[in-house]
Amino acid sequence: MDDNVDKAVECLRHGRFVLVYDFDDRERETDMVVASEFVRPETIRTMRKDAGGLICTTASHEISEKLQLPFLVDVLACNYGSYPMLRKLAPNDIPYDTKSAFSITINHRRTFTGITDRDRAMTTSEFAKLAKYALSNGFEEAREEFGRNFRSPGHVHLLNASKQLLVARKGHTELCTALITMSGLTASATICEMMGDDGNALSKQKAKEYAKRYDLCFLEGSEIIEAWTESRKAR
Amino acid sequence: MDDNVDKAVECLRHGRFVLVYDFDDRERETDMVVASEFVRPETIRTMRKDAGGLICTTASHEISEKLQLPFLVDVLACNYGSYPMLRKLAPNDIPYDTKSAFSITINHRRTFTGITDRDRAMTTSEFAKLAKYALSNGFEEAREEFGRNFRSPGHVHLLNASKQLLVARKGHTELCTALITMSGLTASATICEMMGDDGNALSKQKAKEYAKRYDLCFLEGSEIIEAWTESRKAR
Repeated sequence: MDDNVDKAVECLRHGRFVLVYDFDDRERETDMVVASEFVRPETIRTMRKDAGGLICTTASHEISEKLQLPFLVDVLACNYGSYPMLRKLAPNDIPYDTKSAFSITINHRRTFTGITDRDRAMTTSEFAKLAKYALSNGFEEAREEFGRNFRSPGHVHLLNASKQLLVARKGHTELCTALITMSGLTASATICEMMGDDGNALSKQKAKEYAKRYDLCFLEGSEIIEAWTESRKAR
Repeated sequence: MDDNVDKAVECLRHGRFVLVYDFDDRERETDMVVASEFVRPETIRTMRKDAGGLICTTASHEISEKLQLPFLVDVLACNYGSYPMLRKLAPNDIPYDTKSAFSITINHRRTFTGITDRDRAMTTSEFAKLAKYALSNGFEEAREEFGRNFRSPGHVHLLNASKQLLVARKGHTELCTALITMSGLTASATICEMMGDDGNALSKQKAKEYAKRYDLCFLEGSEIIEAWTESRKAR
């Protein structure tokens, strides 16, 4: 495995942030990434202050299948009969991909407003626990446990990784799912897009400077794809 | 009208932020509030850095009716047949209210990723323009225009104000809708919950200090309700 990816995987295992840039010909965006199981209130605080995008939690295809997590675009499409407006809003013109990874939004049932650092940390870290439980139990148990502990809508966006990881879609959801799968942790990352102060995404240069300042790993999508391809061959 | 509310309305008309605290016996939360029509990239930057919650855009009942904006909880309920999991996730235990104001998420079709300050500013300010257009045109024209210019899912949460404003529900969505209606501007506010660095919502005391530091109006829900009730009597 690429040295850089190796280091990043080690960082994730220690609950540290890793920065993941996608590609110069895609979103040109860097996300702050952490293993969901290690999210604490301070993690959320750093993400909202230093990254500034939406705080989202990814689910591998195995997790989203176990928990019956739909893609939000499919949920909306189910409503075309009741709300014809939704058909007119169909996201048929996303500039950087064919489909967004958005699933539903959730809150843990023990949260209060759902949005504070404590609340979002509870939602994301408990989601990782649930995902772990789900992966080693049957569909029915997994879904009962999900419904007992979470409600939707909520304040944390779930993101579904595509089934054939990094084949059809190569977004941050897939890149981070590959990375966290290689780490051997529960395959859910909590991620947030890094914003620049000029109105645009934080530039790759500035994201690298941030990584340097805080001694964090900075990875490009191509490095993850290469390591992932290698790791699949090795199986 | 209460002097404080009067000043806040004047600030909104000048595109300035107003801070709105709800009630000691509800969320105990302060939101940064601005008229959607005045949102610029710097507005979004300030909200994500200084407030830190979800950046949401409200729609009065008149607007959401014109644009057929569903409540997200109803959209999910429509899917109980296709995705039985969603029924188990039903939000039947929100601690501070009976129903959340969440509608769908949107992006303007001219955005790129949808999440940058520029992109969210375009989505929110263009939504205000659309709302204004919708209010003075028929259902069909309004909805065509909506679909031509926006897609869903996106990165800005729409919030639907309840029909009888401040009767059944007294959340930030309703408080801000009342305030912006009294200002005579297009009845859409862009709002964001203010977070504290201790993991909780920013305390009322700290929110007041922030207001003082930046010379912003700070309003409590009770003041808005009083002014709103007065203004309705005066009609």
